[in-house]
Amino acid sequence: QSNVTVYGVADTYFGYGKYDDNKFTGVNSSGLSGARLGFKGSEDLGNGLKALFTLEYTLSLDKNEGVGTGGARQQFVALQGGFGFLGLGRQYAPGYFVNKYDATAGSSALSPQIQLAKAAKATIDAGSGSRFDNAINYKSPSFGGLSVNAIYSFNETNQDDDRRSNDKLGLGLEYKNGPLAAGLTFQQIEGGDDRDDQKEWMLGAAYDFGVATVLGSYQQVKDVIGKAGNTDKIVQIGAVVPAGSGKVHVAWGKLDADQGSDYDVKSWVLAYTYPMSKRTTLYTGFLRNDNGSLTKQTNLASNKIDGADVFGEDSDNFVVGVRHTF
Amino acid sequence: QSNVTVYGVADTYFGYGKYDDNKFTGVNSSGLSGARLGFKGSEDLGNGLKALFTLEYTLSLDKNEGVGTGGARQQFVALQGGFGFLGLGRQYAPGYFVNKYDATAGSSALSPQIQLAKAAKATIDAGSGSRFDNAINYKSPSFGGLSVNAIYSFNETNQDDDRRSNDKLGLGLEYKNGPLAAGLTFQQIEGGDDRDDQKEWMLGAAYDFGVATVLGSYQQVKDVIGKAGNTDKIVQIGAVVPAGSGKVHVAWGKLDADQGSDYDVKSWVLAYTYPMSKRTTLYTGFLRNDNGSLTKQTNLASNKIDGADVFGEDSDNFVVGVRHTF
Amino acid sequence: QSNVTVYGVADTYFGYGKYDDNKFTGVNSSGLSGARLGFKGSEDLGNGLKALFTLEYTLSLDKNEGVGTGGARQQFVALQGGFGFLGLGRQYAPGYFVNKYDATAGSSALSPQIQLAKAAKATIDAGSGSRFDNAINYKSPSFGGLSVNAIYSFNETNQDDDRRSNDKLGLGLEYKNGPLAAGLTFQQIEGGDDRDDQKEWMLGAAYDFGVATVLGSYQQVKDVIGKAGNTDKIVQIGAVVPAGSGKVHVAWGKLDADQGSDYDVKSWVLAYTYPMSKRTTLYTGFLRNDNGSLTKQTNLASNKIDGADVFGEDSDNFVVGVRHTF
Repeated sequence: QSNVTVYGVADTYFGYGKYDDNKFTGVNSSGLSGARLGFKGSEDLGNGLKALFTLEYTLSLDKNEGVGTGGARQQFVALQGGFGFLGLGRQYAPGYFVNKYDATAGSSALSPQIQLAKAAKATIDAGSGSRFDNAINYKSPSFGGLSVNAIYSFNETNQDDDRRSNDKLGLGLEYKNGPLAAGLTFQQIEGGDDRDDQKEWMLGAAYDFGVATVLGSYQQVKDVIGKAGNTDKIVQIGAVVPAGSGKVHVAWGKLDADQGSDYDVKSWVLAYTYPMSKRTTLYTGFLRNDNGSLTKQTNLASNKIDGADVFGEDSDNFVVGVRHTF
Repeated sequence: QSNVTVYGVADTYFGYGKYDDNKFTGVNSSGLSGARLGFKGSEDLGNGLKALFTLEYTLSLDKNEGVGTGGARQQFVALQGGFGFLGLGRQYAPGYFVNKYDATAGSSALSPQIQLAKAAKATIDAGSGSRFDNAINYKSPSFGGLSVNAIYSFNETNQDDDRRSNDKLGLGLEYKNGPLAAGLTFQQIEGGDDRDDQKEWMLGAAYDFGVATVLGSYQQVKDVIGKAGNTDKIVQIGAVVPAGSGKVHVAWGKLDADQGSDYDVKSWVLAYTYPMSKRTTLYTGFLRNDNGSLTKQTNLASNKIDGADVFGEDSDNFVVGVRHTF
Repeated sequence: QSNVTVYGVADTYFGYGKYDDNKFTGVNSSGLSGARLGFKGSEDLGNGLKALFTLEYTLSLDKNEGVGTGGARQQFVALQGGFGFLGLGRQYAPGYFVNKYDATAGSSALSPQIQLAKAAKATIDAGSGSRFDNAINYKSPSFGGLSVNAIYSFNETNQDDDRRSNDKLGLGLEYKNGPLAAGLTFQQIEGGDDRDDQKEWMLGAAYDFGVATVLGSYQQVKDVIGKAGNTDKIVQIGAVVPAGSGKVHVAWGKLDADQGSDYDVKSWVLAYTYPMSKRTTLYTGFLRNDNGSLTKQTNLASNKIDGADVFGEDSDNFVVGVRHTF
């Protein structure tokens, strides 16, 4: 048992959402951070080498679901040493770690970046798009604050030709020095013989000025499935400002669609987090998605009325919840 | 790891059941208590306040199933303090705790109350009907033995109207003083625009006379889905009598159906539990459901022969098993 | 928490497979040992008696799956004492333990015995065929190295007749003395009224000569479903030879089909395992299945091209991976 640490996040919130005439009122899971249950450990192999494992599963605390019914977050074995980290299994792609440049740290309920990445069908966000199956992941040590993160995900298409279609690739370059964190991330989905590769990149940065941390990112998504020939852009900027014992989080972002402004989406958030302790945080926030006349990015309330999609409305979302880490 | 307690119940039994010509012989899970695996913990927040979490999953020890493939029992985060308990997530409704007034303590294999509640489609029993998704639960502290338990479950119907259909509500008033435990429980399923609300209440009590504990309950179920306009009644009474190192459990109950005696069901049990230790209990018992000519409440053996329902037969059930808590 | 030990195996590998024109390249789970997460414990009941429980779930480290989405390995409660072991639940049949006579110890990626047992649809192998639901299992103590293992699995067919169809039975006789291990295993699937019982037996042995351990087995499979009237035979032999800090594993086996040599399959393996520590092992190996003109036993690469089965080709499989136990 001493070989295993059981850990996780229990996060639930009360949420109210509105989209056109649709309203949502209810209790949801994973507002500030993805609810999870994990098992991890490491073994010293000598000579500075370690064996590591992580088994981490998605939870839906509001539902009648089991451990990982909604899937696994990470499942890998790895070796770590002076050379860096080499892991095999389901693992985070570099895109997951762009939550460092997000004023809400990748909150599924409150992040404009995640809302806009979903609208653009981008994989670079701190959500499920950046968890790769069948993956080999290498992470370098830090060289004066600079580190490299590379991952390859095999699609395991079991055919005599076009076997690399839907393979995925991720490359991340990160820099961390004192108050500054910055990163360049690249992710690609192989199109194989049938279509162009989906290519994405993001440049993100965060700087802690003391009175506030300012964060932002710019990303491009090219040749998303179903949108070949288009290159969409997402920009977002935000700040985290200490206020009393807690923090105010504010962010604004825009999806600038290649197809024209009718396809643009804007999103902004105002949130407050209050740490009751190191492990327990209360949070509340309001997020709005401002849809173009031909988009329908919503969060809590559905964008369908009587089975038909409704376009161009504001999606308003208010949440109040608690996150407990263990 | 010190933040998490791993706990659970491993309960399996050999069972023999008979219903008309149908016979069942096999190994089942969860005879005395629902098999489960859980993870829980608490954190002291100061000022008498605590943060709590519980993640508890259903197991089927006889089957090729995972942790919570059959669902979750409880998944919540809560704050507890002088004000009481306030939880968010999937939680027990007050109806779950009526096992206190049941001589078998809510045994899924041996409780007449559970058999009759199933026959009446009541949600007030110590089974899955009293686990509410998307719930906000408040439990008061004890005021001289008296406490209140209130829960609201959001259906999360995501529409522009009739959004509260299938929301659920539970209210419990409990009294505990020395040898006496008593409780009044109310549960309701919102009918919305389409049908009447399903309304249920139960009055239960248990008294420990020393030589025996006598337990019983009376409950009503009104406007169950598919039976609008009817109010069914369930009465059950039982006793737990110390015998040697173990205990004899006996109970009898009756579903008194509004539609007439053809729809009545009677159920009784005789069981014996023997504690091998504080954590390990051997148990055996015989339960019979005595069906009215138009009912078919059975437990181990199926009530279908060649695909057709068979009505009005006795359901005989014999079990012998072991429950291990950890 | 002190009542529960959390344990498991995290095993992933990179694999390359080829079958005719089909090629597989990817990351898989469970090369050397089945990846798993388990929870177990025991309680001293006095008088030399113990209560035990084991809850052990299949993991797929390469996939987006939860704990036991792929099923449970074992889930049981048991009593153990001078009389032996008596368990109720999902448990290993004796056939699981024939990995003791396999030079790869029952590696799913590298064992000729497992490949040939799959080709013959035998249940006697260290895989899922030897995990029985709804089972009562008795294991005797060792009498001078000799022990008995008996299991009965109820199918729980819930009918008025032919209820024992698909019940399963297993009997194992094992002998262990110094360098010698040997065992006779018998397993049966009840055919009921509709077909003959599927009957299997295996005689296996291993002897540690110091410079090498030699292992082998002979088994028969009679009246497999869909092959009534046939008795197929599997023979396999192998050796484990210490080499440097690691071990070389070599094995060869043949399925001798009753229907003639067109239905035969041969399989061989050459593998190397290197222990980085007691708990972490690197492994690599090459396994080939040599199919008869009418068989198609493959491992990593699919045996279908454009949806049609391809027969009679070699299945070549190369793996390199890491197993970490915790």
